[in-house]
Amino acid sequence: MTGAAPPDFATILAARARLAGVVRRTPLLGSPRLDAIAGRRVLVKAEGLQHTGSFKFRGAMAAVTAMPARLRARGVLAWSSGNHGQAVAEAARRLDVPAVVVMPADAPAAKREKVAALGAELVLHDRAGPQREELGRELCARRGLAPIPPFDDAQVIAGQASCGLEIAEQAATAGVHSADVLVCCGGGGLTAGIALALAERSPGLRARPVEPEGFDDTARALALGRRVGHGRRGPALCDAILTPAPGEITFPVMARLCGPGLAVGDDEVRQAMALAFAHLGLVVEPGGAVALAAALFHGAAMTGDAVIAVATGANVDAAVFCRALARLDSHAAV
Amino acid sequence: MTGAAPPDFATILAARARLAGVVRRTPLLGSPRLDAIAGRRVLVKAEGLQHTGSFKFRGAMAAVTAMPARLRARGVLAWSSGNHGQAVAEAARRLDVPAVVVMPADAPAAKREKVAALGAELVLHDRAGPQREELGRELCARRGLAPIPPFDDAQVIAGQASCGLEIAEQAATAGVHSADVLVCCGGGGLTAGIALALAERSPGLRARPVEPEGFDDTARALALGRRVGHGRRGPALCDAILTPAPGEITFPVMARLCGPGLAVGDDEVRQAMALAFAHLGLVVEPGGAVALAAALFHGAAMTGDAVIAVATGANVDAAVFCRALARLDSHAAV
Repeated sequence: MTGAAPPDFATILAARARLAGVVRRTPLLGSPRLDAIAGRRVLVKAEGLQHTGSFKFRGAMAAVTAMPARLRARGVLAWSSGNHGQAVAEAARRLDVPAVVVMPADAPAAKREKVAALGAELVLHDRAGPQREELGRELCARRGLAPIPPFDDAQVIAGQASCGLEIAEQAATAGVHSADVLVCCGGGGLTAGIALALAERSPGLRARPVEPEGFDDTARALALGRRVGHGRRGPALCDAILTPAPGEITFPVMARLCGPGLAVGDDEVRQAMALAFAHLGLVVEPGGAVALAAALFHGAAMTGDAVIAVATGANVDAAVFCRALARLDSHAAV
Repeated sequence: MTGAAPPDFATILAARARLAGVVRRTPLLGSPRLDAIAGRRVLVKAEGLQHTGSFKFRGAMAAVTAMPARLRARGVLAWSSGNHGQAVAEAARRLDVPAVVVMPADAPAAKREKVAALGAELVLHDRAGPQREELGRELCARRGLAPIPPFDDAQVIAGQASCGLEIAEQAATAGVHSADVLVCCGGGGLTAGIALALAERSPGLRARPVEPEGFDDTARALALGRRVGHGRRGPALCDAILTPAPGEITFPVMARLCGPGLAVGDDEVRQAMALAFAHLGLVVEPGGAVALAAALFHGAAMTGDAVIAVATGANVDAAVFCRALARLDSHAAV
């Protein structure tokens, strides 16, 4: 089911058909106030309203449903302390198959409990020990589980592409036929999926990855034309998208189809979170707000009358969220 | 266009047709964690994602578009310091007609600026002087403006009913055919509108008003069978729904079609806001969270396998919101 090649469009359409009525068709929102700040029309794809609070459920559900039932019945495994782990746990719960999620022993209690509440088995690992992926693949081999990689997998990318198909349709309904589509980018699964969908369905829309400053490996790799890493480790504000380098499958797709990458600062991320709270009624996590931050504050890098920003997730601690809301003070007119 | 009678169903369908592609079809969301807390399936109608951040835009737009263009061109007026004022300002902006919003001189700067940013003229009044409605009607007479009442108006109720039509369709899609539909209730415009829509389209769904404890005039009026007021004045947490008594038009509709009213405490409201943040990715204002609070914490008063709660608005100060998020501490497992 998976391989080293990206999904073709038939695979993307097949994934979308399996996800129909299962994933939420999230709304594309806007506000006159955000348009005024950006100096152009801003549309926000609200993926934080997706099941488990992030776009990751699309890819997880696509990958798990793509497996033969007999294989799936033995169980699935994800290595992730965050959104992907929750998404795989929820996909497995819905299909009534076992799920194992490998996460660091020092992951926050709230994240451990969210995954456990979805019925998944938690395997905690010592950060000083073997890498998470290595440990996960070893567990899969030993227990006959199927790994669900976070981004470098054709079915996962095909699932994320369903978000791009929705954007193409919703943008057309909104009268937008030419725009940059800014995507919060870690390993590039969502960015590549959206790029593949738009290339087929709305070639006037161009996907562009957005990353935090200092973790912009994808932007630099696109500029260089080859995969490079950022060589940095967390912790950082945008913890959900600190993947060290773009994927083997996702990078060639992005190199072929995406516009230049963008990088935003932490303060811009906090302002974007605060403005989404005030003008869209949306909770957006830091890693999910980098695209909106670029849309609002990097207008000079954009072309076209409109910009579409994917707000990829809503899983954020209350304390982090409220520190971001303090940034509203600097926008007296919001 | 308006009168002392509620809208008939043809008027409701005509309003819906005028609102098609103009109001947002807001999503009906849920989460396994909320289901577990409530002990039954909980579906949340996310009206905070509506234009201007509340359901009020439906009624305002329905009322303004129902007027003859020549009358509308002279301008419209609302008396409201909050969601209805913003909604009328935005409806007028979209139709390119003048809007006047009457609000108290001591209304928060943020609310004044939001209305002004939408292009409306602000008229500030002294709380010690004549009542807002009196002043508004006098201004209308003097300047030839058309008043857009906040709830006691057939076209406004017809606009709010569009939310009920969506609930009927979305509940059917979700497989829910019998449930209480809990509605945050001030003057009763939304509750009456939803009740009228459900009576025609989904008689297994029963609208019920929810109010803050101490301000539950509608619940007591329904129990007594006649309009009574709560006789209290704000300020209070749920400032958006402190209307002193149900409306002349809305009350008979609610008395005929609604189930018993419910009242919730401020602490339950804050917990509901915190849980909507954590599990739905939604910003909900205090007055917009009373229905969800009842769904989560007053299960004994509910019948049926599912409950639908309308989250009516998202316009809340960051400080008030963050005080509510502090309530997450009491739900260690969220």
